Amino acid sequence: MDDVRIGWIGLGIMGKPMARNLMRAGYRLSVFNRSRAAVDELAAEGAEPAASPAEVARRSDRVFTMVTDSPDVEQVVLGPQGVLEGARPGTILVDMSTISPEVSRRVAREAAARGILALDAPVSGGDVGAREGTLSIMVGGDREAFDTVLPLLQVLGRTVTHVGPPGSGQEVKLVNQIVCGLNLLAMAEGLAYAEKAGLNLETVLKVITKGAAGSWMLSNLGPKVARRDFAPGFMVRLQQKDLRLALEAAAAAGQPLPGTALVQQLFRHLEATGRGDEGTQALAKVLERLGGREEAPGSLTG
Amino acid sequence: MDDVRIGWIGLGIMGKPMARNLMRAGYRLSVFNRSRAAVDELAAEGAEPAASPAEVARRSDRVFTMVTDSPDVEQVVLGPQGVLEGARPGTILVDMSTISPEVSRRVAREAAARGILALDAPVSGGDVGAREGTLSIMVGGDREAFDTVLPLLQVLGRTVTHVGPPGSGQEVKLVNQIVCGLNLLAMAEGLAYAEKAGLNLETVLKVITKGAAGSWMLSNLGPKVARRDFAPGFMVRLQQKDLRLALEAAAAAGQPLPGTALVQQLFRHLEATGRGDEGTQALAKVLERLGGREEAPGSLTG
Amino acid sequence: MDDVRIGWIGLGIMGKPMARNLMRAGYRLSVFNRSRAAVDELAAEGAEPAASPAEVARRSDRVFTMVTDSPDVEQVVLGPQGVLEGARPGTILVDMSTISPEVSRRVAREAAARGILALDAPVSGGDVGAREGTLSIMVGGDREAFDTVLPLLQVLGRTVTHVGPPGSGQEVKLVNQIVCGLNLLAMAEGLAYAEKAGLNLETVLKVITKGAAGSWMLSNLGPKVARRDFAPGFMVRLQQKDLRLALEAAAAAGQPLPGTALVQQLFRHLEATGRGDEGTQALAKVLERLGGREEAPGSLTG
Amino acid sequence: MDDVRIGWIGLGIMGKPMARNLMRAGYRLSVFNRSRAAVDELAAEGAEPAASPAEVARRSDRVFTMVTDSPDVEQVVLGPQGVLEGARPGTILVDMSTISPEVSRRVAREAAARGILALDAPVSGGDVGAREGTLSIMVGGDREAFDTVLPLLQVLGRTVTHVGPPGSGQEVKLVNQIVCGLNLLAMAEGLAYAEKAGLNLETVLKVITKGAAGSWMLSNLGPKVARRDFAPGFMVRLQQKDLRLALEAAAAAGQPLPGTALVQQLFRHLEATGRGDEGTQALAKVLERLGGREEAPGSLTG
Repeated sequence: MDDVRIGWIGLGIMGKPMARNLMRAGYRLSVFNRSRAAVDELAAEGAEPAASPAEVARRSDRVFTMVTDSPDVEQVVLGPQGVLEGARPGTILVDMSTISPEVSRRVAREAAARGILALDAPVSGGDVGAREGTLSIMVGGDREAFDTVLPLLQVLGRTVTHVGPPGSGQEVKLVNQIVCGLNLLAMAEGLAYAEKAGLNLETVLKVITKGAAGSWMLSNLGPKVARRDFAPGFMVRLQQKDLRLALEAAAAAGQPLPGTALVQQLFRHLEATGRGDEGTQALAKVLERLGGREEAPGSLTG
Repeated sequence: MDDVRIGWIGLGIMGKPMARNLMRAGYRLSVFNRSRAAVDELAAEGAEPAASPAEVARRSDRVFTMVTDSPDVEQVVLGPQGVLEGARPGTILVDMSTISPEVSRRVAREAAARGILALDAPVSGGDVGAREGTLSIMVGGDREAFDTVLPLLQVLGRTVTHVGPPGSGQEVKLVNQIVCGLNLLAMAEGLAYAEKAGLNLETVLKVITKGAAGSWMLSNLGPKVARRDFAPGFMVRLQQKDLRLALEAAAAAGQPLPGTALVQQLFRHLEATGRGDEGTQALAKVLERLGGREEAPGSLTG
Repeated sequence: MDDVRIGWIGLGIMGKPMARNLMRAGYRLSVFNRSRAAVDELAAEGAEPAASPAEVARRSDRVFTMVTDSPDVEQVVLGPQGVLEGARPGTILVDMSTISPEVSRRVAREAAARGILALDAPVSGGDVGAREGTLSIMVGGDREAFDTVLPLLQVLGRTVTHVGPPGSGQEVKLVNQIVCGLNLLAMAEGLAYAEKAGLNLETVLKVITKGAAGSWMLSNLGPKVARRDFAPGFMVRLQQKDLRLALEAAAAAGQPLPGTALVQQLFRHLEATGRGDEGTQALAKVLERLGGREEAPGSLTG
Repeated sequence: MDDVRIGWIGLGIMGKPMARNLMRAGYRLSVFNRSRAAVDELAAEGAEPAASPAEVARRSDRVFTMVTDSPDVEQVVLGPQGVLEGARPGTILVDMSTISPEVSRRVAREAAARGILALDAPVSGGDVGAREGTLSIMVGGDREAFDTVLPLLQVLGRTVTHVGPPGSGQEVKLVNQIVCGLNLLAMAEGLAYAEKAGLNLETVLKVITKGAAGSWMLSNLGPKVARRDFAPGFMVRLQQKDLRLALEAAAAAGQPLPGTALVQQLFRHLEATGRGDEGTQALAKVLERLGGREEAPGSLTG
């Protein structure tokens, strides 16, 4: 490994284990996070704390950002004391957040104007994939910059693919989320009818998962619904954020998505009843309630 | 193998290869079909033609039916010259058609009144599975009757599961079709947005199929959409028949299925434009048209 | 008035007051109804009871039917002891039920084969309109037959319109019900958001009813929602029957109706929770529940 | 009339005739508009041009804004050289744009901090209502400020209603637009089926408009669809803007609106095919295309 200096901004559920994986692979990291606790934690493991994204950038050859939404990226990259204020020409910026493709393209343009190459590199695979370094990473932007940071990305994920020009990483991620949302609805409607028909859900899942109805959602979240486990792998409110981004991007591209719009509206019931932090498999409960089933009183997570 | 006598009614795209598989496994079959050609074909291979479902039943210990819809089953089983007119007590009737669970239950009741045990045993796996004997078969009805005919069903399919009382085979099949329909919509909306965004569909499929967005539909039909192949595996009009059955059964059970209802309405566009015989992946074209893309003139199958 | 002899079949919530209006206008009626009580009631007012639809027809020059659904019309008109068994050539049959246009056309064909002219003449205006003789009546079938019975229809309704060939009366009625269903959803979504936003519903209704958002539904059922009155004008389960007919007829015609399909699925929640006998304005409650509002316990009609 | 000084910002299709109505009623106006032509036009009629919203505010006791969307209001009111920079305590600000309720509340808060009272006063009635002074105006904000400006608002509209605290004018307007959107879909689905069934649209409209299916949309836009007139009263892209605001406000309030979301997606087809400037009745064309009808080639406005 060369002695490339790495900066990392955003130490949440995803960002912290990802940064840690780079440290364990032997890289030296400068880190910044809005709230201080996570910074202290990584500092205790050897990372160098920075006072701002700009300071991170000043100390680094490659800067990674992993924050929540488009405005967060705009702030930490384009804002005052942001990455672009501190970065030197030649720096490569890798934004791993899931945000608007349009914002990714703007970041790439403004970065390029200062001689900095920006890649959009959103991930799928959840916090488990972040911890285990098994994420799937879809990367948009300059091909040479991609090749340069590929060894770093391979520490973070198992499948790393260059998918096209700036913004296209985000676009592929949104395709992924559109498909996930409707596969979830498929599972939710199928199981809601199965319950109403008095079928045994485990049997149903065993029979249909192998064939044409099979999906990751059905295999992985169907059994959770069957045993009433609504703890989050991926949270409802984050899925909603991604569906919002997808519907906005599709609107800008002129593509109606009536099914995805329906999924978004049904998820809203969960948000309206305080279930935004449950796992996305809770969509099954919306269909159950439409079918007239009530949860036990007091059992908000039931 | 014992010298059990088998009757087979319905020699269409599915029924003919299934009957043939039983003959190849050494069983003797009496066969009936509405149109004569398929009967002659199987007779040339050793099957014994019958003049009516009742005659099939008179000659058989086990009677299989594989027809299109609920009224067809009602006719060949309950109607004049139907199976119940010819069958002796102790006969086992195995209906492998996909029909209304309510009709399956009625068939089972009327059969039981004459000492005949009826199983509903719909399949998934398509014509390929029918030919290769790799169908998935979900069986509702008497457990002992199931055990008795299991060796026969194992000639026809790879996975054979008893799922509950009469009608429950159909109900599991409808769950399967509900999930298939929405997984198709997931693929169609995802790819429609991907095309609009200018992404390379092969790349997108390669990247997202392995992860949380993965499904049989995406893996098997996504590449067909990418290369504009809309030839049927499973036809739009048959998927529509199954969605109709699912929505009727769900209505009777008191379960709203808004997503499935949407899928049904979108498939209608294909039927309204003469595409009912295309494969279900043509749902992608509905989304494309909503997005304003036109097919080349004269290219109805484009 | 001439001494034309009138037969009436079907004395439910709609049929009884309609028959009575004809009697009050001086016509002599033979009547039949599945359950006897309504027959006795009208007999006490001077109607002549009949033992079957055929007997009604034998005694009458004009036969009216007002029953619930397509199978009921098939039974009382085409079935054993039905109207066609008793009617002489020259009789005019007026079916005022809301049923499938396809069944209306079949009735017209089978009637014509016996020299009988059949009109389909569904109504809108509810039980109030039936009692007050203010129904709107849309009539399909032979123009001359229409002119002949027009004086009778004008006793029953205020607006009577010949709309086209056999079946077209039903088709116009289904257009009516499609529009009603979505106008109801318009009211339900608008008021659900208004409540959530903390607006005063009476004020909202006062302000928006006069302008571009105005509708019969908003003017007449909006205030009922505001004062939590869900007693039926028109019942959920009858609206559902009509939406089912509309969706089936649209399917046969090759017309997708995604909004109507959604309305039907949302109404199912009311049926699934035992509210099929409430008024259609209860659709507002489905939207409220999607928004997380719960009714007071024990308050099924709340 | 007193000699109150009036400022007007925003001289588009709506704003210009509204400002002119105030001038004709004898008021003196200072005016500002982003593009200069409209300013010159009103200046020629006696209005006093201003160089910025702040300058308008400095010269005025009451400031009206009539611009397109939330960001426009933020800019002309809260931005540099905006209204709040120029306005003195005691000024009343009346924003007649249709924007986010949340932004209206923020404007009211920031105005109040400087001793200025802000009312949100969106209108319905279109450009015809603007010219003729027959708008419906729904006003949120301080009651006393409302009473103060009521004489001015009565010059602009026929129905002027105080509906609640800041933001509630916008909320009532969004309720209005939710209902309008689904009433449009009601018309579109009803007429699409009617056409497919071969009915005469004029006859259908005549029959159903008077009864329970009646609505402003059906009465006013139905005949336009029947004669293929898709010229705008209200443009698709403006309806889309309002539906977006409604869905965002409903999301914030925790209210799912599945029907409105569907309407929005269907309108997108019009935008995707270059019909954003047609009238909202063009929604009928989306349903027609779903039913397989094609427009004549080259006839984008057909």
